[in-house]
Amino acid sequence: MSKIAPISGFPEYSPAQRIVEQRFLDVIRETFELHGFASIETRSIEPVERLSSQGEDADKEIYGVRRLADPGTDAKWGLHFDLTVPFARYVLENAGTLEFPFRRYQIQKSWRGERPQEGRYREFTQADIDVVDVGTLPAHYEAEFPLVIADVFAKFPVGDFIIRVNNRKLLSGFYAGIGITDVQETLRTVDKLDKIGAEAVRALLLERGLTDEQADACLRLAQIEAADASFVEQVRLLGVTHPLLDEGLRDLAQVVEIAAAHIPGKLVADLKIARGLDYYTGTVYETQLVGREEWGTIVGGGRYDALASDGKTTYPGVGVSIGVTRILGLLFGAGELAASRSVPSVVLVAVNDESHRAGSTAIATALRRRGIPCEVAPKADKFGKQIRYADRRGIPYVWFPRDDGDQVKDIRSGDQVAADPAVWFPPAGDLRPQVSRSGD
Amino acid sequence: MSKIAPISGFPEYSPAQRIVEQRFLDVIRETFELHGFASIETRSIEPVERLSSQGEDADKEIYGVRRLADPGTDAKWGLHFDLTVPFARYVLENAGTLEFPFRRYQIQKSWRGERPQEGRYREFTQADIDVVDVGTLPAHYEAEFPLVIADVFAKFPVGDFIIRVNNRKLLSGFYAGIGITDVQETLRTVDKLDKIGAEAVRALLLERGLTDEQADACLRLAQIEAADASFVEQVRLLGVTHPLLDEGLRDLAQVVEIAAAHIPGKLVADLKIARGLDYYTGTVYETQLVGREEWGTIVGGGRYDALASDGKTTYPGVGVSIGVTRILGLLFGAGELAASRSVPSVVLVAVNDESHRAGSTAIATALRRRGIPCEVAPKADKFGKQIRYADRRGIPYVWFPRDDGDQVKDIRSGDQVAADPAVWFPPAGDLRPQVSRSGD
Repeated sequence: MSKIAPISGFPEYSPAQRIVEQRFLDVIRETFELHGFASIETRSIEPVERLSSQGEDADKEIYGVRRLADPGTDAKWGLHFDLTVPFARYVLENAGTLEFPFRRYQIQKSWRGERPQEGRYREFTQADIDVVDVGTLPAHYEAEFPLVIADVFAKFPVGDFIIRVNNRKLLSGFYAGIGITDVQETLRTVDKLDKIGAEAVRALLLERGLTDEQADACLRLAQIEAADASFVEQVRLLGVTHPLLDEGLRDLAQVVEIAAAHIPGKLVADLKIARGLDYYTGTVYETQLVGREEWGTIVGGGRYDALASDGKTTYPGVGVSIGVTRILGLLFGAGELAASRSVPSVVLVAVNDESHRAGSTAIATALRRRGIPCEVAPKADKFGKQIRYADRRGIPYVWFPRDDGDQVKDIRSGDQVAADPAVWFPPAGDLRPQVSRSGD
Repeated sequence: MSKIAPISGFPEYSPAQRIVEQRFLDVIRETFELHGFASIETRSIEPVERLSSQGEDADKEIYGVRRLADPGTDAKWGLHFDLTVPFARYVLENAGTLEFPFRRYQIQKSWRGERPQEGRYREFTQADIDVVDVGTLPAHYEAEFPLVIADVFAKFPVGDFIIRVNNRKLLSGFYAGIGITDVQETLRTVDKLDKIGAEAVRALLLERGLTDEQADACLRLAQIEAADASFVEQVRLLGVTHPLLDEGLRDLAQVVEIAAAHIPGKLVADLKIARGLDYYTGTVYETQLVGREEWGTIVGGGRYDALASDGKTTYPGVGVSIGVTRILGLLFGAGELAASRSVPSVVLVAVNDESHRAGSTAIATALRRRGIPCEVAPKADKFGKQIRYADRRGIPYVWFPRDDGDQVKDIRSGDQVAADPAVWFPPAGDLRPQVSRSGD
């Protein structure tokens, strides 16, 4: 029998950590639904051929899947490595029955065989939202996603956050306007700014054939950052003109203005954001935790003019992906998140002796009917031992069935009061486990 | 590029079906938590060696997993085919930090490469609860699980259900008491009663060396069924005695009596229930939908004295597993479940013209802050077209921003009234999509 051991990159949580994860997932789902996104789930596997056609050096990170009993050695299927590839396939497969524009959210695990490190896992949960339409998709959708991200993060116990946005048309138009021909390569190089710094990026740009003036212009553009539409004037001052640049400035200004009205202080136009992926064509999004910028981006996304295409019809989309396992891994790693208990029970119903267990079960049933999570003590031990059972799990209340009227004890304060299972209710703050940032 | 097509046995739902699935999963989770079970999730893969040591001809159904880039051809990992094997491993791995008795629930996908058919899938979701303890586990836990199952199914829109229970000690003791030596083989044969009938089972038992009298006794025992403890007297009348039989009768009577008090009419002792799996050692459970007995059991479980063991310590447990994808597959297949809409939105906020989109977004934000899921119309089309957008998705209300005071229209009745986004609230029945059995 194989040794019992963790598998690197496949995190598993303790029951208390799982309560934290569930709270995050509940917040995400509730917020996505408030914004009218419908849930779908896709199968975990896709044809290897579909997965490996996505570029991005994804091939070598794909986990192949095949029945051990099947002859041959080649895997026909692979575990999906993100939720975008399966979503694009789902849209094409169900185009005849879906209502477009289609607003969907998807919260599922993905698998990627890359080298595990803090915040990067081989099995991980992502929470994606996208809007996809047929043929064309209005730019106003691009202004909507920061509002959703902000609503989610405002409910997380993670402190302050900042959404950084840019626009690919703005970058492409600017680059074209100064005579750069390989726009994609320039994008990918500028995207390294945070990692390698301005001097190294400048050297790379020159190496790739840009003139000193072009490289300087790229870097000056990348330095522009503003929480309002003043970035438009700053770009104009660089003296570059191009129709695509105009479109990008207009769209990005709309995103910034909607954000200023609805989520003041939570979004900046940051013109160095490029996001490496080829398929973005409009607004691009990143999100950081303030004070934890070294953790990098925990939400990514953007607009793509061809999420999917069947050759005849093209489906443009815009979306973002929240790296749930990444956020939790970083916060757990920093010891920053805790749940007030490791079980859902708010009450332990004590058992006086085993012959009266049915009475304790009846009390638990009455509490559950009223929405109060509880459990019955495993044994009619001395009360001190039953209280320790509750204490070790963080269950705040122990219920004592008594012939002269039940009593309930708050084991944190020691307060004990008369209580009726048909009437008693815990304080709202105790009903569910509390999830908080350590030190809060 | 591979053809876009479903993969047999890997079901995917429409957004409306997914709303039904979510409702089922929400009911299950809420009920499990009311009963004090804590959630865990385990990684999707286990060492192949651990999976394939579970007997049950499981080997050939295992999906092996390996990085396409890794050399060699043998898969070291496999996707788990149930939640019991990973849970047992999780208990051993975390025995030092878990609090025992440990009440856990786990709602996850599993994968099994068997031949797909209605109600049987290759990727499927199960919802498991178990209590596991160290060394010994009191029998009273066996009486608890039917209460949880009944609480779950009472909240499902699936009509009436019946929980059938038996006890392995009762069967083993009875068989031993009439001189049968191969108890496991007899259990497995009697377990075929529903499939092949009494005559065929009798023939098989004789073939396996039982005498006429032994076979008849087995079949008479299997005919006993009672909603109360009267089954004890019926068994006694068969004149068999054995200490293990006594224990089984006592434990099963306790299960039946607790059920009679808490969930009258929902549980019967059915002495033909055996459940084929070797590892059950006490109470065994099955559940059927009344009127849909041909669908077989949709919940299975039981008591096992050795859920896990590290050689020194043994961890006995008791648990049940709800076949979520199985239930949904059968009910969807029969066309019996529907959601009232395909999106979470209860309101579509109309847009008068694109220059006033920000006003519509502000209304949506106000509604969301008050917990009302909504979305803004994609285009400032004619109102008829915007209403059709809502209608096609089943969104019941359309909100019209107006300079002289907003109005909201119930597009089912045509009623239109003045409304303030800071005050208006939909009827409780409209806030979430309704999930109902067709014809209800």
